[in-house]
Amino acid sequence: MRNFDINEDPHRRYNPLLNEWVLVSPHRAKRPWQGQNETISTEKLPEYDPTCYLCPGNVRANGVNNPNYESSFVFENDFAAMKQDEIMFEDDIKQTFFKAQPERGISRVVCFSPRHDLTLPEMEVEGIENIIRTWQKEYTDLGNIDYINHVQIFENKGSVMGCSNPHPHGQIWAQSSLPTQVEKTQKSLKDYFIKNNRNLLQDYLKAELIKEERIVIENDHFAALVPFWAIWPYETMIISKRHITRITEFTAEEVTSYATILKQLTTKYDNLFNTSFPYSSGIHQAPTDGGKHEEWQFHMHFYPPLLRSATVKKFMVGYEMLGESQRDITPEKSAAVLREQSDIHYKNK
Amino acid sequence: MRNFDINEDPHRRYNPLLNEWVLVSPHRAKRPWQGQNETISTEKLPEYDPTCYLCPGNVRANGVNNPNYESSFVFENDFAAMKQDEIMFEDDIKQTFFKAQPERGISRVVCFSPRHDLTLPEMEVEGIENIIRTWQKEYTDLGNIDYINHVQIFENKGSVMGCSNPHPHGQIWAQSSLPTQVEKTQKSLKDYFIKNNRNLLQDYLKAELIKEERIVIENDHFAALVPFWAIWPYETMIISKRHITRITEFTAEEVTSYATILKQLTTKYDNLFNTSFPYSSGIHQAPTDGGKHEEWQFHMHFYPPLLRSATVKKFMVGYEMLGESQRDITPEKSAAVLREQSDIHYKNK
Ligand SMILES: O=P(O)(O)O[C@H]1O[C@H](CO)[C@@H](O)[C@H](O)[C@H]1O
Ligand SMILES: O=P(O)(O)O[C@H]1O[C@H](CO)[C@@H](O)[C@H](O)[C@H]1O
Repeated sequence: MRNFDINEDPHRRYNPLLNEWVLVSPHRAKRPWQGQNETISTEKLPEYDPTCYLCPGNVRANGVNNPNYESSFVFENDFAAMKQDEIMFEDDIKQTFFKAQPERGISRVVCFSPRHDLTLPEMEVEGIENIIRTWQKEYTDLGNIDYINHVQIFENKGSVMGCSNPHPHGQIWAQSSLPTQVEKTQKSLKDYFIKNNRNLLQDYLKAELIKEERIVIENDHFAALVPFWAIWPYETMIISKRHITRITEFTAEEVTSYATILKQLTTKYDNLFNTSFPYSSGIHQAPTDGGKHEEWQFHMHFYPPLLRSATVKKFMVGYEMLGESQRDITPEKSAAVLREQSDIHYKNK
Repeated sequence: MRNFDINEDPHRRYNPLLNEWVLVSPHRAKRPWQGQNETISTEKLPEYDPTCYLCPGNVRANGVNNPNYESSFVFENDFAAMKQDEIMFEDDIKQTFFKAQPERGISRVVCFSPRHDLTLPEMEVEGIENIIRTWQKEYTDLGNIDYINHVQIFENKGSVMGCSNPHPHGQIWAQSSLPTQVEKTQKSLKDYFIKNNRNLLQDYLKAELIKEERIVIENDHFAALVPFWAIWPYETMIISKRHITRITEFTAEEVTSYATILKQLTTKYDNLFNTSFPYSSGIHQAPTDGGKHEEWQFHMHFYPPLLRSATVKKFMVGYEMLGESQRDITPEKSAAVLREQSDIHYKNK
């Protein structure tokens, strides 16, 4: 009988944020791939596209004209998944099988810059600082609305991630309930805080900074790492070194550091397969329900689907949907590969 | 203030199997789609493909020849996600952040028939009965191996679901641990059983058969329905009317009924968009850990990604990954649409 070798042997890892396991199959990266290839557009985008509903001055689906904005620009989503209407509702608490409740919310779109062709890694740090300040403002404004208890800031980048317009933009869905994944995360953070009187993610980050093997980038205020329990091949997480519960607590210096690490991480991503690297990213932070939420720690997730090249992604399908998430390379290997990537964007080399 | 209208107003629904919520946005189906379209192959497949590693008589990646099989055929996956090796391992139970354990398992591939071109809906009922008997045999054989505690039977159909060979086949991943989704399901079933001394899914099915609005197909022994809490646009579940914990308990009559409902359901799926309808499907049933598991109820999930047409799927991305699953049409509407579909395959009309 051999001793367990985490770099070679199939194993499961535990995710203490979601209280779930992931199956890791290090040897499986070697299997050949004859399946679907993604089509990627290598077409050079114009700085301004007259047919784009996000470009400055253009008309949106609802007939409204975008202003001639010069940095980031926010508007209400024309096809929001939630509505603001207050709805009368009597909860039938005895229900087990047909439990439903109305949900109120607001969806906004955040254009990152007037430039149709500039993704995060190609923007200047100052431009990214602007986006962060927009996120801060939106978190505050939306969070101040009495029925809004959670503000989800996220970005879907690339058509493979369901993004339907290449003009760089993110979204914000603010709503009355805590979404499932956030509720689970909060439960884990809270349990840990009650038990240890410490912050789970602060303790985790400290342990990772000592081990070093999964750290991708570190600066004075933030680290970007591949979590020990990552499910996507090149999944990462950005965590602030200081205990911060929400984005509005950042100092001006921290905003700059955050913008810098965002630029570096997304640059490394693009350089990995010499492509505009698709992902969904999003911020997890304290809810806006009026609580103090010391158990919370600001962090940002990046979930990129690509596995082997610009066109071959990881499919989270059959076993993953019915059983559990499964990955083919170890997080340590992914972190090493990302670390090696240059901080200079491949288009500028 | 209006009264809550579940057919029109954004709302959340509760999934008592996974203890999770889903966001339902009935009005959102109307939004235009400018995003990625899937490429679908409309190429007519040959009955036998000399380059296919699943066709009878052909050579597989490991150099082994397939037999000239005549019904279904099972072999060990050449690129398995788990290995059978017994590994020495000392559990560090004090670990919070770096918890890992070796996992042993066996992966098998189940070719549905020698025909390269025959998907489930196009097969005869007898052929599907054969597949079910193969699943029964595999559940028994794999389950009897002492370290195997769970047998996951599933199918990835279509390249959009990561299937890399169009020769109709499914997979079986058998392993020592209970996968995350199964463990969650078991917890819900058990909690309900302890509290009510009844079976959650049996009670749910009875309630659905009275309401009728989400039933797609019903026969003497099974029903196919769109769960109240479905996340995928045309997600369905097949449940047996009799309380059955595992596939090996089926009578010969039930095997025929199950084969029949499988053929009908997949035929309706294909007819919906006149395409070979992609999905991941899989069976949830009692683990093979030696327990009796009265709390369990055999059921089969279908998770199909298509939303609007043969080429436009639902993307489970940003908000869905970070927040919670979101759907654009109600389960009741989906069930009605599926119910309307003919039981005769569009290719035979
Ligand atoms: O085993 P296959 O068909 O090569 O691979 C497919 O199914 C597996 C099990 O759901 C997934 O892990 C893979 O991502 C997917 O591409
Ligand atoms: O809002 P968009 O960009 O039109 O749509 C995209 O992001 C949403 C939020 O993650 C998803 O619900 C959609 O499936 C996806 O296509």
